[in-house]
Amino acid sequence: MTVLVVGSMALDTIEAPAGRREMILGGAANYFSLAAGHFTPVQLVGVVGDDFPAAHVAALESRGISTAGLQRVAGKTFHWSGRYGDNCNERETLATDLNVFADFKPVLPDSYRATRHVFLANIHPQLQLDVLDQISAPEFVAADTMNFWISGELPLLRRVLQRVQALFVNEGEAHQLSGERNLVAAARAIAAMGPPIVMVKLGAFGALLWWHGELRLVPAFPLTTVIDPTGAGDSFGGGFAGTLAASGRIDLPTLHRAAAFGSVLGAFCCEGFGVERLLHLTRAEIDQRLSKLRQLVAFDT
Amino acid sequence: MTVLVVGSMALDTIEAPAGRREMILGGAANYFSLAAGHFTPVQLVGVVGDDFPAAHVAALESRGISTAGLQRVAGKTFHWSGRYGDNCNERETLATDLNVFADFKPVLPDSYRATRHVFLANIHPQLQLDVLDQISAPEFVAADTMNFWISGELPLLRRVLQRVQALFVNEGEAHQLSGERNLVAAARAIAAMGPPIVMVKLGAFGALLWWHGELRLVPAFPLTTVIDPTGAGDSFGGGFAGTLAASGRIDLPTLHRAAAFGSVLGAFCCEGFGVERLLHLTRAEIDQRLSKLRQLVAFDT
Repeated sequence: MTVLVVGSMALDTIEAPAGRREMILGGAANYFSLAAGHFTPVQLVGVVGDDFPAAHVAALESRGISTAGLQRVAGKTFHWSGRYGDNCNERETLATDLNVFADFKPVLPDSYRATRHVFLANIHPQLQLDVLDQISAPEFVAADTMNFWISGELPLLRRVLQRVQALFVNEGEAHQLSGERNLVAAARAIAAMGPPIVMVKLGAFGALLWWHGELRLVPAFPLTTVIDPTGAGDSFGGGFAGTLAASGRIDLPTLHRAAAFGSVLGAFCCEGFGVERLLHLTRAEIDQRLSKLRQLVAFDT
Repeated sequence: MTVLVVGSMALDTIEAPAGRREMILGGAANYFSLAAGHFTPVQLVGVVGDDFPAAHVAALESRGISTAGLQRVAGKTFHWSGRYGDNCNERETLATDLNVFADFKPVLPDSYRATRHVFLANIHPQLQLDVLDQISAPEFVAADTMNFWISGELPLLRRVLQRVQALFVNEGEAHQLSGERNLVAAARAIAAMGPPIVMVKLGAFGALLWWHGELRLVPAFPLTTVIDPTGAGDSFGGGFAGTLAASGRIDLPTLHRAAAFGSVLGAFCCEGFGVERLLHLTRAEIDQRLSKLRQLVAFDT
């Protein structure tokens, strides 16, 4: 089953202990698509400027990602720049130039409107609602968000929460949105706002999955070397939503397995600058790492 | 198989969001013993002052913990006092009165010297060595330590590392001891100093187990309410070493299962002030939570 993603497309400048890269392919929708594309067809909704290299579009299309929903407008592509400290645990944002992304109005091609699986990456909640309004019968919608919308656009975000099956948040966002310091209590409180599924992403510690009052945990795949963690969370989302759409089922074992795939894709993402590892990744490598992840956690009782 | 533990015995004063308790039974050896005692006979080596309530000794003995190695000397028992913030994530030490613990010289009763399984809780590395010198044929020795000994007594600590099979450290100690920021690299570097097994305790995120170059992960059991996390790490140690001694085997599946029992005992410990939850805990409750922990992490590939 196809999965539609709406979110940022960017050109990123990254400084990390392993080196520096200028104006490389980035953005949440892009990371999501390249992760999800390993499992299922992807429809991408986003905007780029007239400086966006055609080779990037070609690279996405060569991996079965539809770019019919990618708007190309006059001006510069969204540019993000950041610097990572030792072991890539700390991140400092150096620049956020929204450029053409500032006026982004998602418009779905007719061919996208019947899509059942949707991932609303982190954009203004009004735009998330606008996308949902253009989809005829959404069946499984997951949304990401951020501290900025929780503090500044809570009423709109609450409307989003009423219309999605899953919310993705990190630990800080979970606390901020729920008012709860305890992660389990936070997930429960967020679920009470609408989404039966809450995924709390814990970075190097994996993720906590809440589903109708049941918990599941997935660890992060332990990496010896982290090159660039940019996009790991969106790659997690892509691995999750992509395998879920491919399976066509929404039950706890399937969600748990999808979260494990998410963890695996998030880890691969960190092993190269930008999307370079996601671009050179085989399904066999993914499956092998999933088996390894299971072995890491499955003890005998 | 019996497990011997040497470490602190204390009277603690705890302030937490859930309340305040004065001069309650505490200390690493005590938490360890009450956790391990659910699985195997325990021999306790420690020191208390003449203010130490006889009822505490009776409580330990009633749970099959031998206190033949517990010295009772003139003076006051070690007293620790701390305050926990919201959700018990942050801890402030208010007082550390070593008292009789300052001059502690562990002496093993003859009946303890043939013991094969040993847990050296966090004490001066010279005392850890002194204990090992009194054991005729130690088979499996695990040691805990802390930042204070890593910075101040590294040569002695390195001698300990040459004589133990397992080292327990938290994340900060792992970085400090190895010079590595990455957890996997840190575990590998510590193993190269001696212990084939390295357990990196990650608090609310569980633990990472390194065994001869192989990794395993155990999550913390997710709790909705944390009353008092004092002693959770030592209870983890007790669950780990206690089940390991009971099994009589040292292989990766057994170590992984032991770490899971450790996680379960650590979580139970947090559910009451001091040792109160460990004292009122059945083997059935432990096994039930172990099964639940496995369910939380074991996804289908």
